[in-house]
Amino acid sequence: MSSAQQNLSETLRERMFELGRAAREAAAVLARASSATKRHVLEAAAREVRAARTEVLAANAEDVAAAKAAGLSSAMVDRLALDDKRLEATAAGLETVARLDDPVGQVIAEWERPNGLKISRVRVPLGVIGIIYESRPNVTADAAALCLKSGNAAILRGGSESARSSAAIHACLCRALVQHGLPETSVQMVPTQDREAVGILLRDMASYVDVIVPRGGKGLVARVQQDARVPVMSHLEGICHTYVHAAADLAMARRIAVNAKMRRTGICGATEAILIDRACAATHLKPIVADLIAAGCEVRGDGQTRSSDTRVRAAADSDWGKEFLDAIVAIRVVDGLDDALAHIRRYGSAHTDAIITNDAAAAERFLNELDSAIVLHNASTQFADGGEFGMGAEIGIATGKIHARGPVGAAELTSYKYVVRGTGQIRP
Amino acid sequence: MSSAQQNLSETLRERMFELGRAAREAAAVLARASSATKRHVLEAAAREVRAARTEVLAANAEDVAAAKAAGLSSAMVDRLALDDKRLEATAAGLETVARLDDPVGQVIAEWERPNGLKISRVRVPLGVIGIIYESRPNVTADAAALCLKSGNAAILRGGSESARSSAAIHACLCRALVQHGLPETSVQMVPTQDREAVGILLRDMASYVDVIVPRGGKGLVARVQQDARVPVMSHLEGICHTYVHAAADLAMARRIAVNAKMRRTGICGATEAILIDRACAATHLKPIVADLIAAGCEVRGDGQTRSSDTRVRAAADSDWGKEFLDAIVAIRVVDGLDDALAHIRRYGSAHTDAIITNDAAAAERFLNELDSAIVLHNASTQFADGGEFGMGAEIGIATGKIHARGPVGAAELTSYKYVVRGTGQIRP
Repeated sequence: MSSAQQNLSETLRERMFELGRAAREAAAVLARASSATKRHVLEAAAREVRAARTEVLAANAEDVAAAKAAGLSSAMVDRLALDDKRLEATAAGLETVARLDDPVGQVIAEWERPNGLKISRVRVPLGVIGIIYESRPNVTADAAALCLKSGNAAILRGGSESARSSAAIHACLCRALVQHGLPETSVQMVPTQDREAVGILLRDMASYVDVIVPRGGKGLVARVQQDARVPVMSHLEGICHTYVHAAADLAMARRIAVNAKMRRTGICGATEAILIDRACAATHLKPIVADLIAAGCEVRGDGQTRSSDTRVRAAADSDWGKEFLDAIVAIRVVDGLDDALAHIRRYGSAHTDAIITNDAAAAERFLNELDSAIVLHNASTQFADGGEFGMGAEIGIATGKIHARGPVGAAELTSYKYVVRGTGQIRP
Repeated sequence: MSSAQQNLSETLRERMFELGRAAREAAAVLARASSATKRHVLEAAAREVRAARTEVLAANAEDVAAAKAAGLSSAMVDRLALDDKRLEATAAGLETVARLDDPVGQVIAEWERPNGLKISRVRVPLGVIGIIYESRPNVTADAAALCLKSGNAAILRGGSESARSSAAIHACLCRALVQHGLPETSVQMVPTQDREAVGILLRDMASYVDVIVPRGGKGLVARVQQDARVPVMSHLEGICHTYVHAAADLAMARRIAVNAKMRRTGICGATEAILIDRACAATHLKPIVADLIAAGCEVRGDGQTRSSDTRVRAAADSDWGKEFLDAIVAIRVVDGLDDALAHIRRYGSAHTDAIITNDAAAAERFLNELDSAIVLHNASTQFADGGEFGMGAEIGIATGKIHARGPVGAAELTSYKYVVRGTGQIRP
């Protein structure tokens, strides 16, 4: 490294640390902000987003033009593009989070000891949350809103493609913060697209950042998981299974299989593999395969699935445990519940898995014995979502075992402390 | 590195990975073990420890002799040494954990969605827990018992000084596991004292180990925190404060100050600094200083504290925020609650801090605004302990924001999953 490069690199580190210090200071203020203040800020942010419609859409048009000029795929450009409807959804999302219960200060548990000490476990913010995301500019508002609601400062690092759009939305959030007397630094954006800034955030800022949430594709999440020296809440893949048990109602199995796979194929809760019990394959396999194909899905199957329908392609070994994120499904016939559990343990990603059955005992075994973040009985895996769980919003879905699992909403962005009230007790 | 060294190093990695794989397999069995089985194993382990009295004490005598020959300090030798009383305490500790409620399967929360989906949040084990500890051989039993109770497999790495004692206790646990049909590999000891084994455990076994708990001095914890690529539950230091507020009852303040500092000086919940409010210094400072000195404590103070008693030494700058772990305390006069909070935020370690006051509003501000894992009102900081909290036992105390904070008992060694019960719901 030349000495000029080294100086640049030192300057970047210092800028990032400055961001971290400002976030820590803001977090101390946010931790004590009243529920009303936080609600007012989020409502004001929604108003600011609506009022800044022209500026935000103009900034977005520049991002979109640059993305097209750079030859980005139409799927990428679509994720990036804002219009009136998407901007209104962003503002409405801020209002949804505004209305959620404030988790901070909630008493999770309380008890009294024989010596009279009253112990309570009270929710507190985590502190500073780093969010690293890709092209969707609305994440700027969504993620910041959940952090703010839960009393946390946010450091946002969006994709370079959406930099102008994110900056315009970020400006709305800053105005709302200042209007209600909260530090503008409660929500900060990393001010450079230098990739090294992400490295510094992941590796060198453990004293400033309490947790990192990556939002994006597998490449991004894998990099964050690998490089982070800070706890990460994330899932790498959603390899979700739907198991049609021997005692599955056929109509229900057909309806759920098509919904679980095809409602939206690009989300992490989409089913990627369907397991059909050998005991019901004679009746259930053919119609489920036909429904999926009729819905526009490519079916890749094992031998028995292929012999049920000539349109089924042969599944390759690599199709088991593959996150297609597309209108493709792998179907296999399994030898009962144990075989299904073994398959899911081997190929799943501990994200979301479902059993379809009218046999309560089989359902309980599936729900108990499978260690995925979300296990469902007689419902579509596409319900893997904070909104569908009633959390109002989510910052992502986590599959790790530490801290939050499943949808991560405002309450999951908190920790707790113990408050102990005494009357002069000393320890014997 | 020579090629012979490289081979040795590869062999060690392979042995450690083998340990990890065995732990993962055992964890899958433990996660489904019944409450009764786990209780029976822990009761059997207590019986085995009592029955193996002669072997364990003989192994310990060898450890102690080797430690003395190696010139270890008498404090180290004392931590290492077992006798009938300590061995009985180890067995009784196993029985205490046996009687605790089983956290696994507990429903933490449940709710129903408008579409009829029933969602419950259910405790599940973390998986595999690595425990790295120093010379106390009883940690082998204590830590393993809490892991087992919470359905987790344990990989234990004790200090080399206590290797023979730990192995003898470990053998008791293995016999108990086998008697009740659980895998012997539910509790494994790292079979080598090679320090590189710890490095592999911390850095390279993220797919086999879910969390690491270091038990020992600051040097050990700092190394684990620095090197681990796996989540760590720990505290580096317990720099606990007791703040005597203007409205503190003098008799209570004197009693608590002496207990908080002197009951046991070597534990993490011992108070290291006492802050006296200027508004009550005229009446409270002198008697508190005198009590502490009478109890055998060295007092290091600021100017006003020194002028209250000629026996007080001048506190150095480095005495603020110092974990003495000894009969030494730093005392400072502060200008009210805000100054006390600022001092604790600057010098504390977010472990345990207490306020002594009869002013309820001041107490609530202290309890709310200070972000330590444990905050107390009118009670001794020495209550920072899982047993005193009613958890039955603790594997340690955590000050991080992620996952558990404060005393880490059996419930804190669990995660959760969402169980969703439907009647055929698909997502619109």
